[in-house]
Amino acid sequence: MGLQSISKHPVEGLTLPGHYYTSDEVFALENERLFRHLWYFVGRGEQLREPGDYFVEKVAGENLIITLDEQLRPRAFYNVCRHRGTRLVGEKEGCFERGRIVCPYHCWTYACDGELLAAPQMDDRPDFRKEEWPLHEVGIEAWAGFLLVNLADHPCPIREAFDRVWEKFRPWRLGELRVAHRKTYELETNWKLTFENFSECYHCGPVHPGLSKLSPLRSASNDLTEGLFLGGPMDLAFQSMTFSGRACAATIRDLNEDQRRKVYYYTLMPNLLLAPHPDFVVCWRLDPQSANRTRIVCEWLFEPEAVESPGFDPAEAIEFWDVTNRQDWEVCEQTFDGVSSDAYRPGPWSPTETMPRMFDREVLKLLGHAHLR
Amino acid sequence: MGLQSISKHPVEGLTLPGHYYTSDEVFALENERLFRHLWYFVGRGEQLREPGDYFVEKVAGENLIITLDEQLRPRAFYNVCRHRGTRLVGEKEGCFERGRIVCPYHCWTYACDGELLAAPQMDDRPDFRKEEWPLHEVGIEAWAGFLLVNLADHPCPIREAFDRVWEKFRPWRLGELRVAHRKTYELETNWKLTFENFSECYHCGPVHPGLSKLSPLRSASNDLTEGLFLGGPMDLAFQSMTFSGRACAATIRDLNEDQRRKVYYYTLMPNLLLAPHPDFVVCWRLDPQSANRTRIVCEWLFEPEAVESPGFDPAEAIEFWDVTNRQDWEVCEQTFDGVSSDAYRPGPWSPTETMPRMFDREVLKLLGHAHLR
Amino acid sequence: MGLQSISKHPVEGLTLPGHYYTSDEVFALENERLFRHLWYFVGRGEQLREPGDYFVEKVAGENLIITLDEQLRPRAFYNVCRHRGTRLVGEKEGCFERGRIVCPYHCWTYACDGELLAAPQMDDRPDFRKEEWPLHEVGIEAWAGFLLVNLADHPCPIREAFDRVWEKFRPWRLGELRVAHRKTYELETNWKLTFENFSECYHCGPVHPGLSKLSPLRSASNDLTEGLFLGGPMDLAFQSMTFSGRACAATIRDLNEDQRRKVYYYTLMPNLLLAPHPDFVVCWRLDPQSANRTRIVCEWLFEPEAVESPGFDPAEAIEFWDVTNRQDWEVCEQTFDGVSSDAYRPGPWSPTETMPRMFDREVLKLLGHAHLR
Repeated sequence: MGLQSISKHPVEGLTLPGHYYTSDEVFALENERLFRHLWYFVGRGEQLREPGDYFVEKVAGENLIITLDEQLRPRAFYNVCRHRGTRLVGEKEGCFERGRIVCPYHCWTYACDGELLAAPQMDDRPDFRKEEWPLHEVGIEAWAGFLLVNLADHPCPIREAFDRVWEKFRPWRLGELRVAHRKTYELETNWKLTFENFSECYHCGPVHPGLSKLSPLRSASNDLTEGLFLGGPMDLAFQSMTFSGRACAATIRDLNEDQRRKVYYYTLMPNLLLAPHPDFVVCWRLDPQSANRTRIVCEWLFEPEAVESPGFDPAEAIEFWDVTNRQDWEVCEQTFDGVSSDAYRPGPWSPTETMPRMFDREVLKLLGHAHLR
Repeated sequence: MGLQSISKHPVEGLTLPGHYYTSDEVFALENERLFRHLWYFVGRGEQLREPGDYFVEKVAGENLIITLDEQLRPRAFYNVCRHRGTRLVGEKEGCFERGRIVCPYHCWTYACDGELLAAPQMDDRPDFRKEEWPLHEVGIEAWAGFLLVNLADHPCPIREAFDRVWEKFRPWRLGELRVAHRKTYELETNWKLTFENFSECYHCGPVHPGLSKLSPLRSASNDLTEGLFLGGPMDLAFQSMTFSGRACAATIRDLNEDQRRKVYYYTLMPNLLLAPHPDFVVCWRLDPQSANRTRIVCEWLFEPEAVESPGFDPAEAIEFWDVTNRQDWEVCEQTFDGVSSDAYRPGPWSPTETMPRMFDREVLKLLGHAHLR
Repeated sequence: MGLQSISKHPVEGLTLPGHYYTSDEVFALENERLFRHLWYFVGRGEQLREPGDYFVEKVAGENLIITLDEQLRPRAFYNVCRHRGTRLVGEKEGCFERGRIVCPYHCWTYACDGELLAAPQMDDRPDFRKEEWPLHEVGIEAWAGFLLVNLADHPCPIREAFDRVWEKFRPWRLGELRVAHRKTYELETNWKLTFENFSECYHCGPVHPGLSKLSPLRSASNDLTEGLFLGGPMDLAFQSMTFSGRACAATIRDLNEDQRRKVYYYTLMPNLLLAPHPDFVVCWRLDPQSANRTRIVCEWLFEPEAVESPGFDPAEAIEFWDVTNRQDWEVCEQTFDGVSSDAYRPGPWSPTETMPRMFDREVLKLLGHAHLR
């Protein structure tokens, strides 16, 4: 039977074997080689303003404190006291009083650069030296307004991966945009099905009946076609992606004529989906919990001038993408259900599904696996 | 100590070692050798009437679509699209519009005989041939009004197992009966404890205090004493098994004098319990979920003439068996609790427990295991 | 870096490696070598008064019946019928009618000394002898009013471990005290973190802000410094440990002058924490459910004369310890969270944490492990 595969190995031109979506072993490998090894999106820089501001995020199962030090540099630490291992911070976000991180158990006290400042009664232990017990630190970088962490012992320089696409995103002034709305979704699916779903519009007709009159389905094209970041533009039939077709804000000012008539869809490995519109940008941060559960935080970003303008109302943008999100998440869950069956066999990618196919190839490359031909 | 066994292996004359009830490994083996390999009861034929009618059932962890094709033949398919693996049908039951099974993700469209009829845009892929991507089909047969599926690659012919008992059940006209009531129970127990419970009346005195005046406990006998189907009759003290002793409907017309004064209890491997009465038949379809969880669907079947007669009221039959079911399920759960203990050792079957003992022997045979002596 | 360890093995002077708190394998080993092998506290003798009185407890995953036989001796049995393995008793506590334990499934009937008295219809089986099928018995002893069981095949004599400390506890007349209040807590933490927490007052300042004015934190000392039982006294600033500092009852009559001005804290391996006060005794019975879940039953014990005196009101004692418990349980949960991180490394014990350090050493000894130096 020509194309068909009963192989456990991935085969070029076919979707991935089922265990890539369902097995705990593959997920553990992804944790190691993707989520802990690549630069992982944890939030927006605007979440932190003053020294000592912090938020807590889980990355690849690890609880991290993201904060600003005295020099207003972002810093990231494991949320683990060096004395007994106690979780230092229980709140989701806040500001460390006087820039001190104080363990609730025995008052070991750290600065926001991780230095151990005080450890009560430890002076009585002659072999103890405070400078040997700073918080365990994690690599962190700011890029285009996003904060990214890297749990590797020796993170690869972020510029290598990101500089290449910086010019492309520059006109949207991502670093200055502000979060006007945030919504969190809990999905019973594998995170890769969500990336694959975002990467093709073959499903737009059946899944998003309202979308085709806003953006002609056959207009999808790709201008990033290999590497960690993939995707490209689709035409807009009206002003923006809202059910009315109307924009929710003034057009972002640096866009050229072409950019003003398009919506762009990019996947940023390992955990960001990004959709620049003429008047706003939607981003989806994925937080894969396990092979079969994925949390997605969706944020709607607007220019500060728009957010502050009288009568600013992002409701139409929020409604359109919330409806569209839920349509997508439902088929992602239904597909997870199906690929969990013993009867599932890799199926043939259609000619329009080039980006999910390329995404799979990049994932396999990072995992150290390869397609059979 | 004479009879006692600390063996992990089953010993003749004693109940099964605990891991046969509790271990995931034994359950996986049962899935393979019993539930996927034997003909498994999934429902009643009357649930489907027109081409395209369908219902969805889980069998041995697999989500199946049971439907009727254009020729009104029952067909069974894995609920998995051949393109991306998406679950095709989310509803529990319904009718496929114009006999088409349409995937919600990308509109791949199948006929009710499994043929792939349409796959949008796939013509652009030269190596793709539609006839190579039908739905994955599963063996299905109708017997005595029941629908049975078989997940084996090469199912054994159903007639071999079933023809032998066909004559025995013929007078109850099982194929024509109709479901007057259905109730689903969720049990925290192993499915085999339910079969063993159904196979002996040693427990009837302690567990079913009302039963002995309706059916003398010592009247239990067996007329199927080896093989996949086991059991036999008990005498009726009155007309039927209801708390009043009264029948709920006219006697099923083909029964002989002897059959009119008896109630019969049969276990049909791997997942049906069947109790023909003079005026109705109760069947229990088991759906083992895991070693420690079992779903049971209990159905009360009557002659169509009875169901359609004015004043038809099956309430007494339903009440009696619902009460009795719950008494049985409780001891099945308590026994599962006990055999999960490290202190549990196989115990001695009483002389009246010949059928559960034979049932265990058949299960072990199917698993490729054997009793020590 | 001097003290730091990345070893999976415990290192002298540092807290335990993370897997000692989180791994299922270590917990299974603790079940075998500690909870099933040592004398395990299951309740107070006063819970049983007449022959046939019983309660049911889970010990190391096993459901046990604790009862009194005809001679009023405590007896303990697995809650498992010798016939089919059925759980004999479903209620949490009660009294066996006429001293008979009757299986709900087939009426096999046992005396409260475990003897099988009746097994219906088994006389027809020639190889069956009733005397060979008593209940599976478990070692049980009463000590200082507590009931302790031992699941080992050949329990070590209880006196060896306990006689040594008997004299120490004698003045509090533990055997006569009565439970005035009982409260159960469910913790998401490892049981050892709870023992370690109870064993040091380094945390009392940060965690229990109200405690230091009742009991000077630096007054903690230890008079049991190795072996299964560890701990010692702290000074009282007022009469007792209540927020007002007032006693809730008359001083326990046999206490000497020194004992009347102190509160004592002892850990009794494997599952009791004991705090004698001048006017009452608090005990915490731990029931470790898994590596990450621990149930704790806290009991407030008073002299019978106090309980029966008009106007007896233990509310202040209950409130103080309930508040203190919840403060402790919270940091125990936060510490479990932290030691579950891949970034957790054993930290340096402070000079005041000698008892948790000794507790760890005893646990390791019982597990057959040892510290590296």
